[in-house]
Amino acid sequence: MPRYRLTVAYDGTNFHGWQKQHPPVGEPLRTVQEVLEQAVRHVVREDVQVDGASRTDSGVHAMGQIAAFTTMREIAQPSLLAAINARLPADVLVREICMVRETFEPIAACTRKAYRYTVQFGSPRVVMRPLFDRFFVARSPYELHVEDMQQAAQHLVGEHDFASFTRVQHGKESTVRRIDACSVIRDPIHAHRLQIEVIGPGFLYNMVRIIAGTLIEVGRGKFQPDDVTTILAARDRSAAGPTMPPEGLCLLWIEYPPDTVLAGDARGAAGMECG
Amino acid sequence: MPRYRLTVAYDGTNFHGWQKQHPPVGEPLRTVQEVLEQAVRHVVREDVQVDGASRTDSGVHAMGQIAAFTTMREIAQPSLLAAINARLPADVLVREICMVRETFEPIAACTRKAYRYTVQFGSPRVVMRPLFDRFFVARSPYELHVEDMQQAAQHLVGEHDFASFTRVQHGKESTVRRIDACSVIRDPIHAHRLQIEVIGPGFLYNMVRIIAGTLIEVGRGKFQPDDVTTILAARDRSAAGPTMPPEGLCLLWIEYPPDTVLAGDARGAAGMECG
Repeated sequence: MPRYRLTVAYDGTNFHGWQKQHPPVGEPLRTVQEVLEQAVRHVVREDVQVDGASRTDSGVHAMGQIAAFTTMREIAQPSLLAAINARLPADVLVREICMVRETFEPIAACTRKAYRYTVQFGSPRVVMRPLFDRFFVARSPYELHVEDMQQAAQHLVGEHDFASFTRVQHGKESTVRRIDACSVIRDPIHAHRLQIEVIGPGFLYNMVRIIAGTLIEVGRGKFQPDDVTTILAARDRSAAGPTMPPEGLCLLWIEYPPDTVLAGDARGAAGMECG
Repeated sequence: MPRYRLTVAYDGTNFHGWQKQHPPVGEPLRTVQEVLEQAVRHVVREDVQVDGASRTDSGVHAMGQIAAFTTMREIAQPSLLAAINARLPADVLVREICMVRETFEPIAACTRKAYRYTVQFGSPRVVMRPLFDRFFVARSPYELHVEDMQQAAQHLVGEHDFASFTRVQHGKESTVRRIDACSVIRDPIHAHRLQIEVIGPGFLYNMVRIIAGTLIEVGRGKFQPDDVTTILAARDRSAAGPTMPPEGLCLLWIEYPPDTVLAGDARGAAGMECG
């Protein structure tokens, strides 16, 4: 049976995260999966199930979430993309659609994911709070030393036990994860903004937001860059910095092996423009 | 008595425009003037009146609206700015504050204003609709010929009777206005976006949005660039293009004579960064 892979962007502000949530009483919560599944079901006229690669939290955004569904019969992809988008609300957009193997599982097949955390920093008396993009930028009231944060970030690269970087009840058997890259980048336009980009095969719950919170503690001088090694070794949530709020976080792209796509637009999700 | 001039930015999406509106029954509407006046009154502890330079409509944004109020006694400006901003909701921001002459009138003293209209164009099957900045970009489903629009825009520069470019019941004695510059600019990042920037001493009601609508008709080939001359000569609203929706419009800056500022931050509103 034909299986389709979707690259999905959303403004997470008004969603209760990605994953469907049907409380025992009352209406289902407004989640991206719910809204997307309804749009797809309406278009393909089948009760398909839409699976996602990343369970982003309430308020977290995505440029390149990956989802997949299986239908009984093949549908021409350009019209499928336009029809689904026409059924979606203004805060969700399918950017790309392609056919994949029937066995494609968005979570299991994923090789790497990239997240970006955006922070505006500095005293509110010196730096204006964000206005037009306020739902996409977190704030820190401190001056941040970016070079120290860059140095600290390098200690996170590689395979480590990230138990200090997830919430206490994480429900995972192993807290060992690999980080392929962790960069702290000055925003080219806004002098008082920076972006923390993290790339790796998989992340623990809240891991990127706790990494951001810890690097910000380094930036303001509460931790030294080398303290990150001690924080990792502690395997204790209380050793790391705070969990930063969701609005600064964006799922940028998810990578799959090159042979994943059978037909359709095979461009990688990372390279596309999404305003 | 001390008089202060404010440079104000706002996301107009959730405002019923700038101007206070107190219906005979029920609550006052949520307007920028109302919200700003409340914040200022709370900070200065006087029932001041806040006057604005431009009565922007519902859904129209501003980077550099100008407002002014008079108090009984002088207040240190940096703390005044921070205190007002702390009292404002997330969608309004005072960017600058300075002291001006007691006789300063934001509307009468203004020498020039600049507006920008942003449009994303092209078939929805080719160009993705805006997502993260959807409240700040209007859409046109047509391919637009930017060079034709640039040529058409030049016919608007100078002093003309703009009766075709305002709503029928405009309530103004004269519809003669001067346009100093009208530019159609390709967006440097988004290939399917353009910006129409208009500079002049003053504009009629809906004038910039009708200029945008008329230039878009030129861009899609419905009007020829030289038709703008005929449209001006007609002095008839029905001769021009449609009124474009408010979300694409932003009041960029308002200019005053250089001797306006008595004390405080004298930087021009146009040169400041506002994210």
